[in-house]
Parts: sequence; structure tokens; C-alpha cells
Amino acid sequence: MLKPKPQQQAPLRRLTVIGCGLMGGSFALALKSQYPQLVVTGVGRNMANLQTAINMGVIDHASNDMAASVASADVVLLGVPVGAAQATLKAIAPKLPMHCLVMDVGSTKADIVALAQAELGQLVPNFVAAHPIAGKESAGVAHATATLYQSARVVLTPSANTNTSALALAKQLWADCGAHLHTMAADEHDRVFAAVSHLPHLLAFAYMNAMTDADALAMAGPGFRDFSRIAGSSPEVWRDIFVANKTPVLQQLALFEAALADIKQLLTDDNAQALHTSIAQASERRSNWPFCKP
Amino acid sequence: MLKPKPQQQAPLRRLTVIGCGLMGGSFALALKSQYPQLVVTGVGRNMANLQTAINMGVIDHASNDMAASVASADVVLLGVPVGAAQATLKAIAPKLPMHCLVMDVGSTKADIVALAQAELGQLVPNFVAAHPIAGKESAGVAHATATLYQSARVVLTPSANTNTSALALAKQLWADCGAHLHTMAADEHDRVFAAVSHLPHLLAFAYMNAMTDADALAMAGPGFRDFSRIAGSSPEVWRDIFVANKTPVLQQLALFEAALADIKQLLTDDNAQALHTSIAQASERRSNWPFCKP
Repeated sequence: MLKPKPQQQAPLRRLTVIGCGLMGGSFALALKSQYPQLVVTGVGRNMANLQTAINMGVIDHASNDMAASVASADVVLLGVPVGAAQATLKAIAPKLPMHCLVMDVGSTKADIVALAQAELGQLVPNFVAAHPIAGKESAGVAHATATLYQSARVVLTPSANTNTSALALAKQLWADCGAHLHTMAADEHDRVFAAVSHLPHLLAFAYMNAMTDADALAMAGPGFRDFSRIAGSSPEVWRDIFVANKTPVLQQLALFEAALADIKQLLTDDNAQALHTSIAQASERRSNWPFCKP
Repeated sequence: MLKPKPQQQAPLRRLTVIGCGLMGGSFALALKSQYPQLVVTGVGRNMANLQTAINMGVIDHASNDMAASVASADVVLLGVPVGAAQATLKAIAPKLPMHCLVMDVGSTKADIVALAQAELGQLVPNFVAAHPIAGKESAGVAHATATLYQSARVVLTPSANTNTSALALAKQLWADCGAHLHTMAADEHDRVFAAVSHLPHLLAFAYMNAMTDADALAMAGPGFRDFSRIAGSSPEVWRDIFVANKTPVLQQLALFEAALADIKQLLTDDNAQALHTSIAQASERRSNWPFCKP
């Protein structure tokens, strides 16, 4: 568990979470454990989901009125899918208090930075785009925990317009959640995550689409289980991510296609020695990856 | 833990494990827990490894003389890589007792069935090809346990030549280990495992070969971790598997390439609706896979 902070931090009294799922709910729980006076409003269209959040102590108030819910907020966290971000920003922009920090938790960053730039007007400097590298097999606020972000990496992609105090508060809040912070440009973020996250998802989806033989799937073991786990992810979320990050994803896919063509040629040619060298390079690179533990 | 059987089974007194690693060592430990009188001889070239096996109680005797080690065996288990199978079969064939059951634990089956057919002479009917669907991140006899095969699936691929009593004993021994047994033709096995195991490995190796950016890898999260885990596998083992099962692997790869080309085209065309449909099919198929738990 996260330890409560020895003294209450003054500025954080009201948090509004729009799109109250695993990510936003866990952010609220983590900050509630640090700021006992924090009042959290959850916003969403599904009232049963918001009732679950209330019952769990994730939020104190529920609302389906986005604009009203942010009017007295110190921090707004957008937990909505990428495809809903523009409408959300447009709805809240007129009501945001001047001091209010606005963050998201999306998997792509250049798109949300551009949307915030277009929609937030004079509040643009208060927007700090965030991507927590955390998740679970099971989404939904019912699986939210105060410790989801503990020791997780969180990438912030401030722009040239971002206010330094907004960035400082963003860093403090994610650190309060137990996260390890990284800061990079939005474009760099999107290139990196196209490589290490979006491409693997695309490959796993394509792989499952090729697996039409149910009898074969019934024989699959732990290698299949882990390799294909991410293919079970949400179609809505991943359609939005691929569309939002199309160019970097296609660039990374081209690199993969070249590597696959190489290893296919070695196998086709019965070039066992070069095949060994190729596999050994892959195996060594994977074995040297420093975050192997779950 | 496996429970000892209430009464000792008569015929199993001597087991020889050639290639004393995780698979062979775990087989020995599981059977020792069922047959307290069982004497196990471990055969290998690495004496330090055999000493570890002795210290762990996996084997009772160690030898680097394959032929001599099988001369009084009731069961011989080949735990050697596919590439070493032919030389091993050739070496032991002249010394195998007439009643001795011979099994392997390899990931490809048509090749080993053909090798046994070519090398075992009148003992051909005693050979039962076996593929336990079990493994760990860490290979080596040091990680062997009596419970590795508990609730694991084991595929047996007897041929038309296989003796029914040899097959019955093979089934009994794997059942004694706690395994769930499947029987299929060797060719069918190789097609199925090209799809659900060999192709994912090939894709994971190619993916890691494309990932040349260490800074990007440093940002990778749990999706990458699971997707690429199998890329850390042994280059020797997987070179041998790909070479042994080349045609089925290339056939499965062609199916994947077509599925990847499809989803790439949808993204290139900004066809968000069809992209969603494609991902949803993959996600549903993966979610319906019945063995999701580790």
C-alpha cells in the first residue's frame, strides 16, 4: 500500500475523472490515499459503472454533466478513449477554472496534444499529456486499485506551451501514485510506443486472424498464451490507437516485415547457421531487456 | 505434490534419461514420486550438470556412455535436442533390451518418428514419440520439479508400427506424471504446433530483430514483455525445430502474412470500421481460448 503523506498538500481539493475506468479509478484511489481531504467526482454515461465507483470509494460524486463537473476542479483527468477526447475537451473548455491542471492517460500523445491545443484556448498551458505504462488483463473501474501505478512508468509529453507549474504538479501527482516519471516529446513518444506496444498488438491481432483452426488452438500452450494475450484487448481502444498513430505504426511494421522476410529466407534456403545467428541475436536482445519481472 | 501410488507397479525399475535437463529431469522426479524403487540413470556430456541432478535426487547414477546406460533400462527417455536425436538413437539401438520403451520429448514429431524408424531396427515398435506441452522460462535440470507435467497436456504420436503395450505403458507413465494425454498422427501434430507454437516463435524472433532501438525497448511495458517472452528461447533448440518442421512452418507463415497484409491495408486505407471488425474477430477468438490461466 501507498503510505499517506505526512502532511496534507494544500492545493489539491477536487479531482474530476472523466471516463471512470481502471486507469482513472486507480489514479483517484492512489491520490485519495495521499490526500485524505480530496473530493473526487466521476463523470460518465454509464450510471451503473459510476455506482460501482461510489461503492468502492473511488469517487465521492457521480455526474453525467461533463461541463458542470469540472467547474470547481483543481485537476481533471481524462480517462476517455482517444476517439472521444475531442468532444470531451470541447465540452469542458468553457468551464475549466484558470488554475486547473488537465491530463489524459491515452496511449498516443501527438494527437491529444494537438486536440488540447485546438480546444483548450487560454487553458492550453494547463494541459499535460500523460501515458501511464500500466494495465491489467481486466479493464473497468471494478479492478481499480490504489497501487496500479506503484513502480509503473508514466511518460509525460509536455509541449513548448506547457506551463511549468502545471508540469510540476503533474509530476508530483504521478509521483504520489508511486510512478517512475519519464518526459519526452509527443512525437518521440509515439514512435517509441509504435515500436514496443502498437506493433506487437497489430501482429498479435493478425496472428489470431490467421488462426482459424479451433482444433489447433485447443492444443496451444504457454508460449501461445503469452504471445497472443494482447490480442484479447479492446477493439475500440486499439482501432483508435492505430488510427491515431498510423504513420509511426506503419513505419515500425515495415521494419518488422523486413526482419520477417530475412528470417523466412534463411529458413527457405536451409541456411541453418545464419538462422541460428538470427535467432541468437533476437534471443540475446530479449534476454537483455531489463524489465522481465511482471 | 503428486501422491504416491498405493501400490508399486511391477515393471518399472530402471529409467534412463539421455539429455538430463528440465524435461527429462522433471519426468524422472515425477516417476520417482510414484515408483519409490525406481532407479534413474542420467546420461550427458556435462558432468557438472549430472552432479546437480544427483544432488537434487533427480538421478541415482550418472554416465557419459549412452550405449551402456540403456543396457538394463525398462524405459529410455530422450531429452536431447532434435539435432542430436539421430546419433543418440544410433548409439543406443544395439544395446536396448527387447522390452524397453523408448520415448522422446521433442517439439516436432514426424522427424523423430522417421529417425526411430530408420535407426531402431527391431525395436521400432517400442518407440512412442511424445511432446509434453510444458516448460518454464528457465531451462536446465536445476529447475526440474515433480509437478512440471501436472495438468499439462502431453501429445503422443504413435505410428502404425507402434506396439500397443508400449503405447499403453507410455500413456500410463505420463498419466502418472499428472498429464492430460492426447494422441494424434505425427504429421497432424507438426501442422498444429507449427500454427500455435513455431510460428509465434518465428514472429517473436523477427520482431526482436527489428527492435534495434535500445531507448525504445527501455520504455516497453507488460504487453511487450508477454508478446516477446518466447523470443528469449534457446537459439539451438529453435533453429532445430524450424529446420525439422520447415514446410508446415512456412505454410503457417503464409497464412499469417496474408492476415497481416489484410490488416495493414485497412490501416493504410483509414478504413476504421473494417479495422474494428478485424480486431474484434481477433480479440474474440483470443478471449474464447479456453486455457487462459497460467
